[in-house]
Amino acid sequence: MSASIIAIDAMGGDYGPCCIVPASLSCLAEYSSLHLVLVGQTPLIEEIIARYPGVDRQRLHVEHASEVIAMDERPAQALRGKPDSSMRVALELVRNGRAQACVSAGNTGALMALSRYVLKTLPGIDRPAMMAAVPTMAGHCHLLDLGANVDCSAEHLYQFAVMGAVAAETLGTVQPRVALLNVGTEDIKGNQQVKLASNLLQQAAGLNYIGFVEGDGLYRGDADVVVCDGFVGNILLKSSEGLASMISSRIEALFSQSIGSRMIGALALPVLRRLRTELAPAQYNGASFLGLQGIVVKSHGSAAGEGFQSAIRRALIEVRENLPQRLHGRLEHLLL
Amino acid sequence: MSASIIAIDAMGGDYGPCCIVPASLSCLAEYSSLHLVLVGQTPLIEEIIARYPGVDRQRLHVEHASEVIAMDERPAQALRGKPDSSMRVALELVRNGRAQACVSAGNTGALMALSRYVLKTLPGIDRPAMMAAVPTMAGHCHLLDLGANVDCSAEHLYQFAVMGAVAAETLGTVQPRVALLNVGTEDIKGNQQVKLASNLLQQAAGLNYIGFVEGDGLYRGDADVVVCDGFVGNILLKSSEGLASMISSRIEALFSQSIGSRMIGALALPVLRRLRTELAPAQYNGASFLGLQGIVVKSHGSAAGEGFQSAIRRALIEVRENLPQRLHGRLEHLLL
Repeated sequence: MSASIIAIDAMGGDYGPCCIVPASLSCLAEYSSLHLVLVGQTPLIEEIIARYPGVDRQRLHVEHASEVIAMDERPAQALRGKPDSSMRVALELVRNGRAQACVSAGNTGALMALSRYVLKTLPGIDRPAMMAAVPTMAGHCHLLDLGANVDCSAEHLYQFAVMGAVAAETLGTVQPRVALLNVGTEDIKGNQQVKLASNLLQQAAGLNYIGFVEGDGLYRGDADVVVCDGFVGNILLKSSEGLASMISSRIEALFSQSIGSRMIGALALPVLRRLRTELAPAQYNGASFLGLQGIVVKSHGSAAGEGFQSAIRRALIEVRENLPQRLHGRLEHLLL
Repeated sequence: MSASIIAIDAMGGDYGPCCIVPASLSCLAEYSSLHLVLVGQTPLIEEIIARYPGVDRQRLHVEHASEVIAMDERPAQALRGKPDSSMRVALELVRNGRAQACVSAGNTGALMALSRYVLKTLPGIDRPAMMAAVPTMAGHCHLLDLGANVDCSAEHLYQFAVMGAVAAETLGTVQPRVALLNVGTEDIKGNQQVKLASNLLQQAAGLNYIGFVEGDGLYRGDADVVVCDGFVGNILLKSSEGLASMISSRIEALFSQSIGSRMIGALALPVLRRLRTELAPAQYNGASFLGLQGIVVKSHGSAAGEGFQSAIRRALIEVRENLPQRLHGRLEHLLL
């Protein structure tokens, strides 16, 4: 298998390099064809690497970047004020062909703004979208957009649907069922954008568009790709994270009320922990930015080592499948 | 305590009169000052009543209505094509002063359209909103709008916030913390409507407006009243129902995999059932239509007997607290 080179923003995320560097080294050991470029403050990164013996330095390069984008920094400020940020330098490696993908756990808004500025969008795409996997009764579905675009026209939703379908195929779903998220499944339901987008999708050839899906239908597994604007997607994802976390806490509280239930609780704990991991897939698996002339995967800011490794694996699949090229090929036929 | 008269749409909901009539009779027995008017097909309703001995017919009246609105009927059709539907006749009893509230488990869109047409909105209110309680880590919060209005301006969100605050006070929360649902908590986040609504709310005197809350903040209990447009609210509520239901199924499946975990599962079942009930409060407690010149409570279409009784109790509180009058008083001071 030919080598894949991935640029890592080693400074981003809630935990920073002390979490990202070890996670990157684990992936390097796991995939012999993987090359990594760790971008950030060289002395700090080298100090962490030095703690791990046996690292294959032939496949590991450190690229210096003097600045770091804070998690609460405004995207405009990150774009204009920090030309030498680790995030930007990592994206520039992709643009210059020195890397084939960028993975970052940093500030989402800044990563989106910088990705658009540095890599540009594919022809015909107005705005990139962010897509992640959500668990369902039937397995999982791909949900997009997750917060990059708070105001969307029908055309944007249409573009997201096309990109989501191609990306889902790339990630292994055959003929993915594509649906628009709505407040009902009948044609008359929904706001103007959703109704118009549905009309556009009904006319798209080669797309397995199945119509509207509701919030409960999403978790029932009624569709493989669920499309909505970034405002709705972000609120759905975050409220789901909040609810899952509340349920976990309630279960623990319920199981600690009496000696009898405490015993059951102790026995049930491993089962519940497994569930908790399954319920936070965005946190666990990373999200793809779709519609760019390059591959960018966002790892959750609070993702620990395992989560960041999953984001690198996701980037690796997209590199091997050449996702931007596939998107470009399909978009030429499907875009209006 | 003075008598409260509630009109019941006896024909609505997934289960119809065979569920709604017994639930109504239970409430009648529970509250000695409650009077009920069951609206629908008299022979059918009387036949069900006859099965229950000891009903106080002094406080129970049956009002005939020849038509029934189907759960999938279009609101416009329900409005124009069925002048003698049980839902409409129940609302007319409220308008004519023969009842003080209407409770229905029927078609939500039709109930909203008929409520607006028959009862009219309060002065200054463009659109009624639908509000229900959602469980949080801290207890519960009131979420509105839940699907009545899919496209909302900043002024509509402002009106919902004012109505939500007054209704939450009526239902027992002191100085409720009011928040707008958004994709971030910083001022720059969100779409135009949400940003403008936030500006309006910051200037509202006598309202405990605390700013933006995110999807996870809602379930953390960061606010008592959470305001959003009906598209977002409906998707949040239905996806939460779907997720809670998926988690319950997963837990059951996890607990049935081995003999050891099956034993734990059997022991844990009562605990998990209690949780399931807590997680479906809209299904369980009903939703209030706010902003009308009259009280309307919507019971979940699939609510069984207990759920419908909770909706009647909610209507009873609103009657005793004279919610429309209180709303009218506060709106005069707060509306723009």
